[in-house]
Amino acid sequence: LRALVIDGPAAIALREIAAPNVAGECRIGVRMAGICGTDLQLLEGYANFRGTPGHEFVGVVEEVTSAGDQAWVGKRVAAEINVGCGRCDWCRAGVKEHCPHRSVVGIRGRAGAFADFLSLPAGNLHELPDAIDDEIAVFVEPTAAACRILEQVPFEHGSRVAVLGDGRMGLLTAQVLRTVTPDVTVFGRHEHKLNVARRLGLATHGDAPFDIVVDATGRPEGLQRAIDLVRPRGTIVLKSTFHGESALAPWPIVVNEVTVVGSRCGPFLPAIELLASGAVQVKPLVSRVERLERYEDAFEAARRDLKVLFSM
Amino acid sequence: LRALVIDGPAAIALREIAAPNVAGECRIGVRMAGICGTDLQLLEGYANFRGTPGHEFVGVVEEVTSAGDQAWVGKRVAAEINVGCGRCDWCRAGVKEHCPHRSVVGIRGRAGAFADFLSLPAGNLHELPDAIDDEIAVFVEPTAAACRILEQVPFEHGSRVAVLGDGRMGLLTAQVLRTVTPDVTVFGRHEHKLNVARRLGLATHGDAPFDIVVDATGRPEGLQRAIDLVRPRGTIVLKSTFHGESALAPWPIVVNEVTVVGSRCGPFLPAIELLASGAVQVKPLVSRVERLERYEDAFEAARRDLKVLFSM
Repeated sequence: LRALVIDGPAAIALREIAAPNVAGECRIGVRMAGICGTDLQLLEGYANFRGTPGHEFVGVVEEVTSAGDQAWVGKRVAAEINVGCGRCDWCRAGVKEHCPHRSVVGIRGRAGAFADFLSLPAGNLHELPDAIDDEIAVFVEPTAAACRILEQVPFEHGSRVAVLGDGRMGLLTAQVLRTVTPDVTVFGRHEHKLNVARRLGLATHGDAPFDIVVDATGRPEGLQRAIDLVRPRGTIVLKSTFHGESALAPWPIVVNEVTVVGSRCGPFLPAIELLASGAVQVKPLVSRVERLERYEDAFEAARRDLKVLFSM
Repeated sequence: LRALVIDGPAAIALREIAAPNVAGECRIGVRMAGICGTDLQLLEGYANFRGTPGHEFVGVVEEVTSAGDQAWVGKRVAAEINVGCGRCDWCRAGVKEHCPHRSVVGIRGRAGAFADFLSLPAGNLHELPDAIDDEIAVFVEPTAAACRILEQVPFEHGSRVAVLGDGRMGLLTAQVLRTVTPDVTVFGRHEHKLNVARRLGLATHGDAPFDIVVDATGRPEGLQRAIDLVRPRGTIVLKSTFHGESALAPWPIVVNEVTVVGSRCGPFLPAIELLASGAVQVKPLVSRVERLERYEDAFEAARRDLKVLFSM
């Protein structure tokens, strides 16, 4: 079985590995996986990650070790990526995303999806409807992350929203937010990506101030730009986990009483619904599909383009 | 009549000026006024302010130009500092604090309280009860600012709160928040100020993480420190309007889904109540009372000490 393995900053290789066989978990054969900005950062050494990256994927459950979960065998699934300890206050409250002992698929202490197989507990899996083909299914996880914003911020129909960043996360987020308010503008600097935004019917010009500004730039400077665009008492949502720092003058947050909300992983069910109904279109975001062997080209393309997928 | 006048960065002088006599406003004889961190910043050139600073004060209404407001004459008052245009959406919604055309006493386009008199519309005034003497009354405005936090953040009895900064704003804020939850810890670096905190019954040591962290450090680095101390999905309140910038790594806000809320001016009625009842003690915060002539010593003391007051 093949897996991409990060051995250190900028050191990645395709290896033969043993099939995962973890007690109490399910072995999933990966069919497709998407490259996310976080993967590119892990490759650059962020979080000192060692192992197999990749956390956006679709696969089929091949083998299940626990007797009670056998019904999952053969099902086509996407999966939540946080695995909690099951015992802490967060886990008992059903919020494994903040379990201090959590592992995270392909990000923290758990092998990811840039491989032929990966292992996950059945509780993380979501069966996919036929309306979502594999190329759409890899977007379930990032679409769920965009849906998290709807849980955190009270939108009104007519709320004026700016999404900063014309990358894969920006265009996905803009489409998700457009399901609750029509006034969504994407700000970006890449003409070929803004063209995709326009083909998706998204505005790419709009006047500040905005009620809600989402930073999906993937750059630490995004917060300062968001501060410049949001109205007094407006809300900024931070979606970028870029691990750099940037000079920030926080005083306008105070003077304008702005709320800044950090937003990470989100709910899968609404994401699956939005993708199945076509309310969120992801195929125009696919720049390229590559075989796992061509990972160098794939990562290089992901640095410039929209979504790059591996097909196993 | 005397007024301190800022002519430019670090250029301040005591001048003789004409008594203010603004149509539709009230002339208030200032009795005492407090020096705030913002005043020290204005003196250093922040906001390019020219004119008379000072926005924390108690005074007596001496003359009222509008016929309908004559009942204010002779009353002892504190005053809200934002004066709106009265016509914009913010003003119509009753939120003059965010009117884009607002003037702000001693901060923006309006003469302040480090003078024998100042002028304000009657709508900004609050009559003071006898339980609040002049030395307490100068704290109404900053106490209202601390009360603003209670409007913005849902506290529970038992919420663990950290207040960063052992200055006048920190000790005031900690006392206000203690009225809704007993678990409030002040973090600071000045032994003589922490001693005042302890005499007020405030804890000065506590273990992270905290549910709510208020940055009252008056320094741009306060936000990064708050990020280090707050729990996942916790809230940071920014109370500092220090006009510098600082290096910030925003990613932990995202990973831990932290909410950051900017907080400025607040409601006077609850502030007056907290001061009148003694729930918030401000006399221990008074380091010195000076005559207006001794403004140089007063500002110098305000840089090191807690609250320094002018007595007119």
